[in-house]
Amino acid sequence: MEQSAESGKQHDASLYFSRDFNKMASFAELGALARAPYDLTAPDALSPARIRRYRTHAAGFDLLYSTQRVDEPVLAALQKLAEESGAVAQFRLMKKGAVLNRIEGYASEERQVLHTACRDIFAPGSQAPEATEQAKGELVKLADFLTALEAGSIVNAAGEVFTDLIQVGIGGSDLGPRALYLALAAYKFPGRRVHFISNVDPDDAAATLSGLDLSRTLVNVVSKSGSTLETMTNEALVRKAFSEAGLEPERHFLAVTGKGSPMDNPARYLRSFYMFDSIGGRYSATSMVGAVMLGFALGYPQLLEILRGAQAMDLAAEEEDILCNPPLLLALLGIWNHSFLGSETLAILPYSQALVRFTAHLQQCDMESNGKSVTRQGKPLAWKSGPIIWGEPGTNGQHAFYQLIHQGTAIVPVEFIGFRTSQHGSDLMIEQTTSQEKLVANLLAQALALATGQPEDNPNRRFPGNRPSSLLLADRLTPYTMGALLALYEAKVVFQGFIWNINSFDQEGVQLGKRLATRLLAHYAGRRQDPGYSGEESDALGWALLGAAGMLSPERG
Amino acid sequence: MEQSAESGKQHDASLYFSRDFNKMASFAELGALARAPYDLTAPDALSPARIRRYRTHAAGFDLLYSTQRVDEPVLAALQKLAEESGAVAQFRLMKKGAVLNRIEGYASEERQVLHTACRDIFAPGSQAPEATEQAKGELVKLADFLTALEAGSIVNAAGEVFTDLIQVGIGGSDLGPRALYLALAAYKFPGRRVHFISNVDPDDAAATLSGLDLSRTLVNVVSKSGSTLETMTNEALVRKAFSEAGLEPERHFLAVTGKGSPMDNPARYLRSFYMFDSIGGRYSATSMVGAVMLGFALGYPQLLEILRGAQAMDLAAEEEDILCNPPLLLALLGIWNHSFLGSETLAILPYSQALVRFTAHLQQCDMESNGKSVTRQGKPLAWKSGPIIWGEPGTNGQHAFYQLIHQGTAIVPVEFIGFRTSQHGSDLMIEQTTSQEKLVANLLAQALALATGQPEDNPNRRFPGNRPSSLLLADRLTPYTMGALLALYEAKVVFQGFIWNINSFDQEGVQLGKRLATRLLAHYAGRRQDPGYSGEESDALGWALLGAAGMLSPERG
Repeated sequence: MEQSAESGKQHDASLYFSRDFNKMASFAELGALARAPYDLTAPDALSPARIRRYRTHAAGFDLLYSTQRVDEPVLAALQKLAEESGAVAQFRLMKKGAVLNRIEGYASEERQVLHTACRDIFAPGSQAPEATEQAKGELVKLADFLTALEAGSIVNAAGEVFTDLIQVGIGGSDLGPRALYLALAAYKFPGRRVHFISNVDPDDAAATLSGLDLSRTLVNVVSKSGSTLETMTNEALVRKAFSEAGLEPERHFLAVTGKGSPMDNPARYLRSFYMFDSIGGRYSATSMVGAVMLGFALGYPQLLEILRGAQAMDLAAEEEDILCNPPLLLALLGIWNHSFLGSETLAILPYSQALVRFTAHLQQCDMESNGKSVTRQGKPLAWKSGPIIWGEPGTNGQHAFYQLIHQGTAIVPVEFIGFRTSQHGSDLMIEQTTSQEKLVANLLAQALALATGQPEDNPNRRFPGNRPSSLLLADRLTPYTMGALLALYEAKVVFQGFIWNINSFDQEGVQLGKRLATRLLAHYAGRRQDPGYSGEESDALGWALLGAAGMLSPERG
Repeated sequence: MEQSAESGKQHDASLYFSRDFNKMASFAELGALARAPYDLTAPDALSPARIRRYRTHAAGFDLLYSTQRVDEPVLAALQKLAEESGAVAQFRLMKKGAVLNRIEGYASEERQVLHTACRDIFAPGSQAPEATEQAKGELVKLADFLTALEAGSIVNAAGEVFTDLIQVGIGGSDLGPRALYLALAAYKFPGRRVHFISNVDPDDAAATLSGLDLSRTLVNVVSKSGSTLETMTNEALVRKAFSEAGLEPERHFLAVTGKGSPMDNPARYLRSFYMFDSIGGRYSATSMVGAVMLGFALGYPQLLEILRGAQAMDLAAEEEDILCNPPLLLALLGIWNHSFLGSETLAILPYSQALVRFTAHLQQCDMESNGKSVTRQGKPLAWKSGPIIWGEPGTNGQHAFYQLIHQGTAIVPVEFIGFRTSQHGSDLMIEQTTSQEKLVANLLAQALALATGQPEDNPNRRFPGNRPSSLLLADRLTPYTMGALLALYEAKVVFQGFIWNINSFDQEGVQLGKRLATRLLAHYAGRRQDPGYSGEESDALGWALLGAAGMLSPERG
């Protein structure tokens, strides 16, 4: 269907899928340019004209990049890199349902990558009609459910409306949804609250449950496989708490899962929503994984605003001109810093307390996508894959780790995120400026300080400068701009994977730890069944590790 | 006094203060050894005997390091490095009040470094009697205040007891205290809660204030200088909220500040507590900066337990044998990975949801201390200074960024932190193991997987191994072990600074951004006074940046 209709185009563009990063002409050009990158500390290197010129925008966001170490030749070579790698062509194929989650010639997931279809629901002609229809179908179910909640036709056993919702999930079923909820809590229905349980640490669940009136609480259990160890464990813990409180779980529990998973059992859940194989966990915040919780917290219209913002950015990501495509430009600036100027990490620093968990989401989205070591043909990479992503909100970080960013021996490129007005609107003028103005002034000042540095006789007070940053600015953090920001980073990550020729959509690296944990857990179970049990023979190494960790002392049986 | 009594010893040991890292014999030895580091992936390289042997302990913590790429020659060279650099000798001098916060020959802070004195209060003979007496004096004031709160002799205007406390502070006045509060929330007085406002983002304060009954809330304002922009702004915001609620701030507000600061004004505060110049913000969690809030939340006896744990670890840090000194050994293993094996970052991954903000605290403590580029003699460093610190609690991280740690092209050393039993004790047996057992099994499994890796025909499922980690394990996260863990990392950071010959106690790198922010803010104030104001002439660059950021449009005046 979808794919066959597109097969002609797909055939051409698929040539890009095996193009190695270091074989492109632009790779050599950029390598040569990197020997003498633009010097931001030279007199007038950072001029008002440069600041005004190196600026683009899409979907409510301005991207300012005058404080990057780039000039016209570098930007031209980055444009060429985008073209040689077919970055935009691959992005378009992705949106149309190409099977991009694969490794040629080896067993791999062999899946489409269609998180964009969750938002491609507004115009008549979707690029991936089947996935869009699925997404719309789930949205209709969700809208019905939310209406029934608001109308009071779905209530607890005592006839009361639900006030709270606990999202039980981990990884992509937790980080993206949690980041969005915290970002948009200013927009939630009065009296509705959302809580999250993710860690298998029993203290996590205990701390969350302790403060809640369970009789008025919904529980949204999210797991595509329906078998995620942590989520199943936490679901059982929470179900037990409901039972002990004399409540019927099937009146309170919702499921978001894959069709046919062990959790796909409507008898156990008040409502079930589906997630699909074409959407990986770390790209699933705009699917039902985030939508059910966000719909409960913010209402259906605000949920649609998130999707609308994401859709607008997905469209901007199709621009061939890198200067008109913020996600692609951000991806290329990242590659310039990481692959050519040699930085190993990227700090993402939102000047917005509401984005307190957004960097944690991007840590997953980026590092799980691009922390790879083979090409899409299964060959060992001859170049570095994705950076380490880290960061905390400003201005807090200024009082914490910025010392190293300014004066440490490592260069840390920065992506600043800011908003011109606050969400709550409650602000106070002190010394003739508002808090929000102080916040933005600090953001801009940091970019300036990092770029230009400052000479000084006292060597300990010298700032070397030439520390690159980009600035993302929008008017206000709203559901729309949040959706756009989310999609911007999703697209950025995907573009980098295309250009590095890696599969950004699988996560084989998490398997070994899981298998070894199962091996160790078997020893606990063995001891529990037989007090004389020993793992010495079957698994000397694991048994020694448990012993050295103090986990085999008699009182822990 | 203290210093002069010690002057003989101090003179000898002060030779160490100018010993360059790359001039020591052990530096060359370690460089040679790093060409063929221990191969953890070789058959039986990670043996049960090695696991049992590479293990030490202090103050309730076991440190397991068999999964580091070290062998006997490396450990011997690290011991030599410790001795050549006089790491322990310098630590002892620090505890006795040596002026270690300085740069020779240049204007610098010229201060003692005496955070250890806050906990050196239990035995009769403190190593820094004057600082200890100061600390004890503040503790007595705090104990009196807490007793009065509990006895109901300090109450609000309506005669009700206080239930909530808001800590207003930023950087060290926020991160350490917040990390400790969250870590120990399981031990708090029923009905007492603590909240934090740090960011100058007005949404941060608004979100916190919105859910509180201010009439029963104390506000603890923490700033050594009494002039921190964010803290003064937030104090004003919160005072305004109290006034608007018809409450008298001086019945609710506490101050923790330096003697003689603008905040040292008892008329404005219910109680004032002092902090001293010899304790830097990032080392201040066990001073009044953390103690007032922790005393309110946990009670005085539990606060003393934190100090007792810290004191025990401070003593362990004085052991000359690195194999009996966990903070020093951890510091040296870090130097091995960072300076000799070339890793740029360090992931600190607690398998405890309660430690959710501990890594953020360590980000400050470590990166602000060791993110430097000159020696203590003001010469440019010819070696790398401190690493980038990042991380999130496990098992959550396993579902997020571990992909890159296992299979990415960058090597990320890891420090795992875990506990054998949970805090809340509410747990559930699923498939014959408890959640806490699953948590610890996952921690151990990750260390094993990272070290040994796994060969595999499918290159995308191959794990290269030789990714180093250390494991810190204690029985339970209690006030005592939390204090020990905090002190362990403080000492680790300080040891690394001693060995790299950098000043770990100043933070000149934060100044330039502050100055530039002030310059930008002047333009807002200018526009506010004069609608025709322009910064074009006086500051073309700053004015252009404000314009490009969209901050000069007419509606933002």
